[in-house]
Amino acid sequence: MKPIYSITPIGGVKEIGSNMTVIKTSNQWVVIDAGILFPSDDFYDLRYLIPDYSYLDENLTSDLVITHGHEDHIGAIFHVLEKLPEIKIWAPAFAAHLIRAKLEEKGKKVFIHIYDEKSLLEFNQIRIKPFHVNHSIPDTYGLVIQDREKIASTLYISDFKVDPLASFEKPIDLNSIKEFMSSSLIRLGLLDSTNILSPGKTDSETELTHDLDEIIVNNHERVFITLFASNIHRLKTIIETAVAHKKKIAILGRSIKFYVQAARELGLLSFDEKDLIDLENERLEGKKVLVLVSGCQGDFHSALRRLVDGEVPHLKLRPGDLLVFSSKTIPGNEKKIGKIYNKIYEQGARIITAYDKKIHASGHPGKEDLKLVYKSLDLTDLAPIHGESYFLQKHIDFVQTNFPHIKTHLIYNFHTLSLLSSGDIKKTSEDPLELVFIHGQEMVIPKKKISERRKMATQGTVLISIKPEKTQAKIRIELIGLPEIEMKLDALKDLLSDKLYGELKNKDLEKKEDELKIETRRFFNHFLGYKPVTVVHII
Amino acid sequence: MKPIYSITPIGGVKEIGSNMTVIKTSNQWVVIDAGILFPSDDFYDLRYLIPDYSYLDENLTSDLVITHGHEDHIGAIFHVLEKLPEIKIWAPAFAAHLIRAKLEEKGKKVFIHIYDEKSLLEFNQIRIKPFHVNHSIPDTYGLVIQDREKIASTLYISDFKVDPLASFEKPIDLNSIKEFMSSSLIRLGLLDSTNILSPGKTDSETELTHDLDEIIVNNHERVFITLFASNIHRLKTIIETAVAHKKKIAILGRSIKFYVQAARELGLLSFDEKDLIDLENERLEGKKVLVLVSGCQGDFHSALRRLVDGEVPHLKLRPGDLLVFSSKTIPGNEKKIGKIYNKIYEQGARIITAYDKKIHASGHPGKEDLKLVYKSLDLTDLAPIHGESYFLQKHIDFVQTNFPHIKTHLIYNFHTLSLLSSGDIKKTSEDPLELVFIHGQEMVIPKKKISERRKMATQGTVLISIKPEKTQAKIRIELIGLPEIEMKLDALKDLLSDKLYGELKNKDLEKKEDELKIETRRFFNHFLGYKPVTVVHII
Repeated sequence: MKPIYSITPIGGVKEIGSNMTVIKTSNQWVVIDAGILFPSDDFYDLRYLIPDYSYLDENLTSDLVITHGHEDHIGAIFHVLEKLPEIKIWAPAFAAHLIRAKLEEKGKKVFIHIYDEKSLLEFNQIRIKPFHVNHSIPDTYGLVIQDREKIASTLYISDFKVDPLASFEKPIDLNSIKEFMSSSLIRLGLLDSTNILSPGKTDSETELTHDLDEIIVNNHERVFITLFASNIHRLKTIIETAVAHKKKIAILGRSIKFYVQAARELGLLSFDEKDLIDLENERLEGKKVLVLVSGCQGDFHSALRRLVDGEVPHLKLRPGDLLVFSSKTIPGNEKKIGKIYNKIYEQGARIITAYDKKIHASGHPGKEDLKLVYKSLDLTDLAPIHGESYFLQKHIDFVQTNFPHIKTHLIYNFHTLSLLSSGDIKKTSEDPLELVFIHGQEMVIPKKKISERRKMATQGTVLISIKPEKTQAKIRIELIGLPEIEMKLDALKDLLSDKLYGELKNKDLEKKEDELKIETRRFFNHFLGYKPVTVVHII
Repeated sequence: MKPIYSITPIGGVKEIGSNMTVIKTSNQWVVIDAGILFPSDDFYDLRYLIPDYSYLDENLTSDLVITHGHEDHIGAIFHVLEKLPEIKIWAPAFAAHLIRAKLEEKGKKVFIHIYDEKSLLEFNQIRIKPFHVNHSIPDTYGLVIQDREKIASTLYISDFKVDPLASFEKPIDLNSIKEFMSSSLIRLGLLDSTNILSPGKTDSETELTHDLDEIIVNNHERVFITLFASNIHRLKTIIETAVAHKKKIAILGRSIKFYVQAARELGLLSFDEKDLIDLENERLEGKKVLVLVSGCQGDFHSALRRLVDGEVPHLKLRPGDLLVFSSKTIPGNEKKIGKIYNKIYEQGARIITAYDKKIHASGHPGKEDLKLVYKSLDLTDLAPIHGESYFLQKHIDFVQTNFPHIKTHLIYNFHTLSLLSSGDIKKTSEDPLELVFIHGQEMVIPKKKISERRKMATQGTVLISIKPEKTQAKIRIELIGLPEIEMKLDALKDLLSDKLYGELKNKDLEKKEDELKIETRRFFNHFLGYKPVTVVHII
């Protein structure tokens, strides 16, 4: 049986990040989102990972629909365009603005079709209806994918929460979504698993105003607030509170500056230029000021890290300063952020975190949010997305326990759900392609090369060049990342020379180099307990 | 004024780990603990960090008193003995047993003086009275350091909790400690800050038996339990429960085997050999079995990591298996452990963690434990220890708020508290020595070399050897950890050759090598956006 359409995630459904899902009909592929995944550590100076776009069929892939402006949904558009320069891009206004600005920095111009809640995106055999949802960046959408005959409706919402108290944007309209899907035989949800380990209801952004206000008002000394730079509603609350209390605003860090500018250009954020202090030209001394600082995850290159390390000109932390983390710690960043906390206290300043006050709300649904969704929408099927493997299974467990009438489908990247006119959903799988590492100037680096980097980092490197002469060789040895064992290097030279003029005398060059490499690694293993990466050039 | 005695921590009082504190009198230094700190990441294959023992005065340092057998208190004794082979070591029986076993593995024999609660350790001008405390390893002690005239009593307890329900060992006897210190003018506490961010009371080990029992009894499939290997009381509970329910025990991992053997040798743990399955000779198929697995922190070399990656012979995870984490995630290990969770679910097995059931209790005091201590002991002074900087300050904030009559002293490593007969405590500081990195076979590696490793890991390495001949040079180029840009290497060779025979023709060798190195790095920077580590040998 031919599917009505099928769905293949190629990123984001086994990890949180690098989101990309392909909707396939017999003559067209429509791609949803094109995001990046940040590497789980800072080593090897890798910038990010992206799905392997060699998977995308150049003849079929026609359109890219973006749900919102977070990097894990738009960050890899540059690479999609390298492969498919003609792809048509659809996005909400704010995401489109961010995409254009980021591509311009890389010297690329692109036309983007803007959609909003009134739009209906028409493709050959399917149509996509966007529904506004609440999330931690404005202008976020869930999408309902539907065939022309309305047999199969798929609700794709990778990032959202249910926020009935939402005051910045209207809450998600579950009734409208339900109604739009109601005539379909298959009503499949592809839904957010990020917070499936959280038992409760995700806080509303609106509920944070009280504590943020209190912190800003009660602290007459300097207040620094760090947060996720793209959280425009949080920025709005903080800036408006500060201005209302006659505090000046300063912005430290490229990232917050970028998003504040984008949000002002789109009218999502407004304040008077006179309330802003330009840190590059003005000093803070004696001013009542609130400083917004990029880098709540403690990244090495961030403004926050530079601030606590005293690397920002004319702006040193001092006793009395308060640093507010209006954010959460992304798993994996605990140590980096802990180091920042320590440095703040060592300078006599203090911190307030979301552990002390209600100053951060997630953008993702806890179990109670999901319950509201499953109660309101009359879904027949569910496949969890936006999660690591164990989040996906926990999401399935949760639905099986609480909504046993919903059929669940555990899928990972490169699994395909084929929606059949019988009302069934068939799961098939292909060999998954691994995520691709990007480093330097948007370049791909093969995994094998990263292993080489790892070996050099863990075992050090020995470089030996040898010029054989009549009865002895001229040998130079260079150690990188190894303890000084200089006095022992003469012994190594003797050893290599003996071998070269002894048992290896009549061997070919390649054999000689191989053997001397083995000898060298054995020599170091004896002293160090491990074998360094070794290169021998006989020249 | 000459101090009665003074106290200088040289490790563990700005980080959690590498504990070492020096008690100084005019003619003698007594050292408390000699621990290691595990590096905050797995990179560079560093094994651990230790305090810089060049600080220890060889003529004065006479004795080392160990409080308990955790690695962050005994792990660096090997290195202390390298510097001070004659130092006299005092330890409780279980710690002594562990120290001897670990030193024997490294080919070192040592005599250890055993102490217990009845002991009083006498030194020239001071004496040390051990008091039993509860912790996550048996046989742990707090120490009261007292001068002969009993003017100054210092209570040193770096690791403990208040556990009135303790059933494995008796609870801490706060009254006896109070009484022993009562006649002193100075009653200083140096106390554990590990859990100062926890508002409540730390659970008792005894409270875990219910849920552990339930898990072991209710699961008829295979149950794997991972935990901190040195937690003998937890092992005892688990093993006894399994045996009571006619399950066989298997042990996977060197670390748990080591501690189980040590505990059996000392009579802290006992079970019948027939209840044990030897995984090297027996298969598990069809047996009701509980497998204890080392590696609850997900370390790469651990049994747990090998198990989930299918690397343990004849023992593959399968649907129905239950993996129980009777442990907590040490900050910094979230990603590693998350990966393990994912792999377990991908194989259709399930996990239970301390998040789901009451199956882990910390060994350190929460705020409510500390309140009991400060209420019971009549301390005049406090200096928090066993914490990172911000834990130490939070501990001080807590005491200032709740026990304002106690004088607080914020100290870091290499600060000295001098206890004066006036009753005052004077704080002075020296330039702190950095912790020393140990890699390979107990070798020190200088920080500069680790930076070199980092550079190779982040930027890759280029080795160029050049043999100049009459009109042109033979050039070989090797790239390690860099993307293949082979086709461009000919261009680089031409560039280097032109330079060598052109503007550098009459320069000396060193100048030639330097210039070609700069040229090479510039060349790669153009393509990659960064400059690899480069070595040029003209030979």
